[in-house]
Amino acid sequence: MNPEVLEEKLLKMVEEDEGSGDITSALTPNKTVEAEIIVKEQCVLSGISELKTLFRLFNIKVLKSADDGESIKKGQQVLMLSGKAHDILLTERTALNILSRMSGITSLTREFIKQARKGNTRVRVAATRKVTPLFGYFEKKAVMVGGGDPHRLGLYDMVLIKDNHIRLFKDVRAAVRKARESSFAHKVEIEVETVEGAVTAAEEKADIIMLDNMSVKQVRSAILKLGEKGLRNNVLIEVSGGVTLGNIAEYAACSPDIISVGRLTHSVGAKDFSLKIL
Amino acid sequence: MNPEVLEEKLLKMVEEDEGSGDITSALTPNKTVEAEIIVKEQCVLSGISELKTLFRLFNIKVLKSADDGESIKKGQQVLMLSGKAHDILLTERTALNILSRMSGITSLTREFIKQARKGNTRVRVAATRKVTPLFGYFEKKAVMVGGGDPHRLGLYDMVLIKDNHIRLFKDVRAAVRKARESSFAHKVEIEVETVEGAVTAAEEKADIIMLDNMSVKQVRSAILKLGEKGLRNNVLIEVSGGVTLGNIAEYAACSPDIISVGRLTHSVGAKDFSLKIL
Amino acid sequence: MNPEVLEEKLLKMVEEDEGSGDITSALTPNKTVEAEIIVKEQCVLSGISELKTLFRLFNIKVLKSADDGESIKKGQQVLMLSGKAHDILLTERTALNILSRMSGITSLTREFIKQARKGNTRVRVAATRKVTPLFGYFEKKAVMVGGGDPHRLGLYDMVLIKDNHIRLFKDVRAAVRKARESSFAHKVEIEVETVEGAVTAAEEKADIIMLDNMSVKQVRSAILKLGEKGLRNNVLIEVSGGVTLGNIAEYAACSPDIISVGRLTHSVGAKDFSLKIL
Amino acid sequence: MNPEVLEEKLLKMVEEDEGSGDITSALTPNKTVEAEIIVKEQCVLSGISELKTLFRLFNIKVLKSADDGESIKKGQQVLMLSGKAHDILLTERTALNILSRMSGITSLTREFIKQARKGNTRVRVAATRKVTPLFGYFEKKAVMVGGGDPHRLGLYDMVLIKDNHIRLFKDVRAAVRKARESSFAHKVEIEVETVEGAVTAAEEKADIIMLDNMSVKQVRSAILKLGEKGLRNNVLIEVSGGVTLGNIAEYAACSPDIISVGRLTHSVGAKDFSLKIL
Amino acid sequence: MNPEVLEEKLLKMVEEDEGSGDITSALTPNKTVEAEIIVKEQCVLSGISELKTLFRLFNIKVLKSADDGESIKKGQQVLMLSGKAHDILLTERTALNILSRMSGITSLTREFIKQARKGNTRVRVAATRKVTPLFGYFEKKAVMVGGGDPHRLGLYDMVLIKDNHIRLFKDVRAAVRKARESSFAHKVEIEVETVEGAVTAAEEKADIIMLDNMSVKQVRSAILKLGEKGLRNNVLIEVSGGVTLGNIAEYAACSPDIISVGRLTHSVGAKDFSLKIL
Amino acid sequence: MNPEVLEEKLLKMVEEDEGSGDITSALTPNKTVEAEIIVKEQCVLSGISELKTLFRLFNIKVLKSADDGESIKKGQQVLMLSGKAHDILLTERTALNILSRMSGITSLTREFIKQARKGNTRVRVAATRKVTPLFGYFEKKAVMVGGGDPHRLGLYDMVLIKDNHIRLFKDVRAAVRKARESSFAHKVEIEVETVEGAVTAAEEKADIIMLDNMSVKQVRSAILKLGEKGLRNNVLIEVSGGVTLGNIAEYAACSPDIISVGRLTHSVGAKDFSLKIL
Repeated sequence: MNPEVLEEKLLKMVEEDEGSGDITSALTPNKTVEAEIIVKEQCVLSGISELKTLFRLFNIKVLKSADDGESIKKGQQVLMLSGKAHDILLTERTALNILSRMSGITSLTREFIKQARKGNTRVRVAATRKVTPLFGYFEKKAVMVGGGDPHRLGLYDMVLIKDNHIRLFKDVRAAVRKARESSFAHKVEIEVETVEGAVTAAEEKADIIMLDNMSVKQVRSAILKLGEKGLRNNVLIEVSGGVTLGNIAEYAACSPDIISVGRLTHSVGAKDFSLKIL
Repeated sequence: MNPEVLEEKLLKMVEEDEGSGDITSALTPNKTVEAEIIVKEQCVLSGISELKTLFRLFNIKVLKSADDGESIKKGQQVLMLSGKAHDILLTERTALNILSRMSGITSLTREFIKQARKGNTRVRVAATRKVTPLFGYFEKKAVMVGGGDPHRLGLYDMVLIKDNHIRLFKDVRAAVRKARESSFAHKVEIEVETVEGAVTAAEEKADIIMLDNMSVKQVRSAILKLGEKGLRNNVLIEVSGGVTLGNIAEYAACSPDIISVGRLTHSVGAKDFSLKIL
Repeated sequence: MNPEVLEEKLLKMVEEDEGSGDITSALTPNKTVEAEIIVKEQCVLSGISELKTLFRLFNIKVLKSADDGESIKKGQQVLMLSGKAHDILLTERTALNILSRMSGITSLTREFIKQARKGNTRVRVAATRKVTPLFGYFEKKAVMVGGGDPHRLGLYDMVLIKDNHIRLFKDVRAAVRKARESSFAHKVEIEVETVEGAVTAAEEKADIIMLDNMSVKQVRSAILKLGEKGLRNNVLIEVSGGVTLGNIAEYAACSPDIISVGRLTHSVGAKDFSLKIL
Repeated sequence: MNPEVLEEKLLKMVEEDEGSGDITSALTPNKTVEAEIIVKEQCVLSGISELKTLFRLFNIKVLKSADDGESIKKGQQVLMLSGKAHDILLTERTALNILSRMSGITSLTREFIKQARKGNTRVRVAATRKVTPLFGYFEKKAVMVGGGDPHRLGLYDMVLIKDNHIRLFKDVRAAVRKARESSFAHKVEIEVETVEGAVTAAEEKADIIMLDNMSVKQVRSAILKLGEKGLRNNVLIEVSGGVTLGNIAEYAACSPDIISVGRLTHSVGAKDFSLKIL
Repeated sequence: MNPEVLEEKLLKMVEEDEGSGDITSALTPNKTVEAEIIVKEQCVLSGISELKTLFRLFNIKVLKSADDGESIKKGQQVLMLSGKAHDILLTERTALNILSRMSGITSLTREFIKQARKGNTRVRVAATRKVTPLFGYFEKKAVMVGGGDPHRLGLYDMVLIKDNHIRLFKDVRAAVRKARESSFAHKVEIEVETVEGAVTAAEEKADIIMLDNMSVKQVRSAILKLGEKGLRNNVLIEVSGGVTLGNIAEYAACSPDIISVGRLTHSVGAKDFSLKIL
Repeated sequence: MNPEVLEEKLLKMVEEDEGSGDITSALTPNKTVEAEIIVKEQCVLSGISELKTLFRLFNIKVLKSADDGESIKKGQQVLMLSGKAHDILLTERTALNILSRMSGITSLTREFIKQARKGNTRVRVAATRKVTPLFGYFEKKAVMVGGGDPHRLGLYDMVLIKDNHIRLFKDVRAAVRKARESSFAHKVEIEVETVEGAVTAAEEKADIIMLDNMSVKQVRSAILKLGEKGLRNNVLIEVSGGVTLGNIAEYAACSPDIISVGRLTHSVGAKDFSLKIL
């Protein structure tokens, strides 16, 4: 991902928190101190590389750190810092907020992948665009650290024809054709709700077909039908909608290429971390 | 809250999603259309006033809308829109992401307040700074729609002396004194972990005392002790740390002024909404 | 393309020209006037839709206008304006600079396509990233108005493995494999300089193969070889490097899918336009 | 020129190309590498000092470099670099686009000056405002490297009364008078199309008179007439419009002070450079 | 105060002065030179810490410096610098403008405090929001260096109910009540013009009461009345309006907590400094 | 002056004051109200056109207004407004701060000109760059409203060789020559401290000569000497340094072209205005 965007976002986060100045820390002596961040519950860690950038921007040295993707235990130290007290106190809350949210997402992604593997060892688990506005960069990255696929990053890097678009075209066939006439540089995905839609989309050479809000049974029959028609090999199949930790293995067993899960980014519990000046 | 900041944030959200252009919608005819947003599960609504601003910025008319703070039922229409198809498609995901997150927070805040009221009808339930970086504006607002208190907005609008600060001063007494010598314009709050700390802070005329991570029993004895010493009336007492839906009534029954709850903003499930072009 | 980016760029252009103020126009009475833009040489027009946005941003009404993509003759009026004299004088040079450059590119693109069509009626003529920094948005758009393909817009919307990348991998095969393991959301193109490279890339299921700096003869043999091996149908072939108005028909006759031409944006003569207050 | 503006523009150029991230380079190992930029055709070099700033901004060391204004031969190395592969790949296209355009302009400026010198050894050859919007900084600088004069940089640093302004005043005399009454801090130039206009402007003490779109014969007679009237010494004469490599020596022989040439910046072929990781 | 905001403001100041480039310094050799800043009249110094930041941003070393808050004599050296001539010339005027204004404010603040001390040794002298727009950061800081209180920094960090607000509520009582119901995080101040108003405000537990535009006699009787009613101890009293060097001791003798003085920032003479390259 | 810069500055002023929100006004009903601004002391008004822009940006209608440059009496209404209470309260302090400072400067400029006219009816009174950083735009404009000349706006629009520059060249002669070889587009001014310096500068055809910190007698003799040498007519003479209301008439009587006065912008008392909601 774009490192300049990361820096800009981190500075903006601190700027919002700081406003016209950190009036509490201003009262304290600005000594050079050491500080540690510890985790207060078991989780899979992420946000470390983002925090390293954050601390560098505020002249705080990272003396030791655990790694992104590492499984850590309750009470473990994840970062050891050295810097001016004012800089550490200024960035403390931003750092903890990033770490706790990202680690929550990475931990959950890891769990979804573990369940999906029970049905199919090669399926990809992907995020959606159901991210927190302005914080999506971090959420997509946390999904990747957990082994998931970020999916498209925005409206600009893939054509994804959804139900609202189809309504503006005549039908699935017209939509895919129009998309393929546009620039050759981007993949074309289309969301379908029926087996017939999937077949039409594959005939028109969509690159990816999203089976949206289908039951496991429907997904299975759509994929079978594409196979029967010799259309399965040149298209990627994405399952989306209604996927839970409880049913992802069943969906995976139907052998789609991708299963996307909104919950990875929209409803996750933060993990608990704290920072202590030593 | 600052309406210019809101506009800037909304534009930035769409800009990030749009990047170099919405290459899918560009394929569709840019007709004037109507669209509705419906909710797919029962919740207390918020984000409506933010969405009205968003839609105004993109020349989309709001024909009908439910109100912030309203309890809505599964399937209910919450907004009815009219605008250019490209503008509606461009803002759709941003709008839904705001609405689903804010409504999740408002619904949860309402529930915490309902439980707290069982112990004490006047206690305030407040948010913390454990917000999603860059999205905190919306999260604090959602807490307010739910009847909660936003607490300080950042490091600039209240002095809040936490454990890490106290370690840099000599002790609680020195910390509060130093704070009260600085500008008279801001309130001074201090976090204490013992009954003695609370008494010292009250003696030094802190405006607010945060009883941090104390059990219900400890909170009760701290408040009693302050009362005995005649120090209860000139200070606000905030309880923070470890508060759940299950124990908030007990904490409230100790008669603190404020109970703050990090979970209101850091671990909330989004509510499900969808937009349909008619 | 992203309309907000367009507006921002247009405002920035005028801002740079204006600096601390248009000290000449400030001396003139700020009457409402009409003005016309005429062309001083035959060309294919583009930039009209960008100028409409520019004039809207400065409260100048467009009373009449020719259309993007229209062939216009020397002396023809292309825009008729009404507005405050200060606003028209302020935006005059920016408007003419955009119009003259874009129309130069569109005219040249049209000519390249006309020649290419003599060899193959379905080949796409595409731009490259050899654009003027900060003005590329307008140059890619001018190519599109002329009937060309914009190709990828930057480093973010397609994987394009060039010689410098290959040197960092082991070889073509390793490079394509690595790319295909990354997110499924983007197309993977690879630049090859030999027939063998093209075959390897196709075997590894690159989405697009760029035959770089090959002679017409080499291109023909690479495409034939892919056909013999049954690899031609699932891959797009792009020819790039050394393409001129003189040889594009020959390249096109080899039946690649795309021919990209740097000259479309890096070495074009501006067309001559002028603005006259009536 | 303003070095902060240069840095801002260079960062913006890379930012536009990079968008949400360089997804190709992200696949490669981020080793420290050396790279060279070589030129593929004879030219007069410029853009080197801008590229040094660019590379510094991205932590790339310049180990060796040719100089701005140097005549270089086909195949010659112009820059030798050392840096992280990701940084070099990220800035490669921006660097080459700047270098190829600026060197094209510098080479052409040098040629115009060489021709002008045949008619008059002291005349200045100047650029106009017919620059590429947002890239004009680089184009004016390239003209200067070639020995040309940048002329005014925008609407703010000189009063230049053109035909459209004169139409808003009563006449040339009224226009110059009005201009001289305004702040003393800026020069006043006026564009005239007749010998009479030139005389009037000189009588009113314009600092510079632009003889616009006049033939060589008209220019000669205007300058003679000013001399006869004793008005030649206190005014600078600029010739503008219709100047080519073929006729500039003849214009120069009339002894104006300045000859301005739009083509220097609006219709120039880029020179060909390439970057190779070693 | 916020150091990032300081840096941004300093860069913007220089950027405005520099515009498209410092065309005078560009003519000079860019040698490394030393330079000194001396004061040309006796004063209390401030702006030194801001200038250190400014010079750091432009790579100028500060070899020696006097201290903020120091009383200096005519002709004394306050800063000794070393850097590139272009950088020193570029920042010279900005540096002197900051220094001369801030030192003017600090000197005046010191004088007001000295006079106030004659009436009451504990009263605080505070600034108002009557600052120069965009330069208020520096003016509030200068007041603080002089020993004054900055008062609220903007509309966001304290509730201050002024006459215009009261007119929109029913009355003083309603206004304070409403304010105290809003978030507990901020102090509530109210401006009153009568003794009765002051009593009502104190009864409703305003944190601060501003006695606005009252004579010394009125102030005295208001404070006495509050004392009689037992309301003096829990409220801060601020005197504002019509305070001069001549009468501040009398106001102070009435024992308010704060006296605020608009003149500290709105009508101050600059102190004279100059920079000399050695 | 540049209207876009004005808008940006006005928005930034309000943004700084508002911060995270106007927490006082948020408590009041947001009714549509009328309000008036009145002046509390006699002065020459300026800032009206800036306030009209400010109020337009915040949707406040100006129902009536006095004019820039108008002499107004104590108690006179200068603006009558209609708008939402929240918008008026938000912009109130910014509006008054601009008005009071600009009117102070305009009033003082008018007085300096009145005194100067006693010595010479044609001399221009000019401002310097001793402005408040970031607020200089308004201060230069206020000088112009008062009938003064803004002088150069920054380092970019005139060459002004000062003592520090001369020290970097060999001498005055070398400095002016070098300046005149650079672009013809800008005027060249040089600061001299002796009669000889003035003569040399005029011989080298400087456009403007600044007689810096000279007594009235020295100024007179320098101007006489230039006249004797026949060098007076082609050069403008500026007197600068040590000019007061008391001595400006004497300086003016020496017949320089320009007298510049730092005090116009660096040490001015604000005029008192207030806003009242009706």
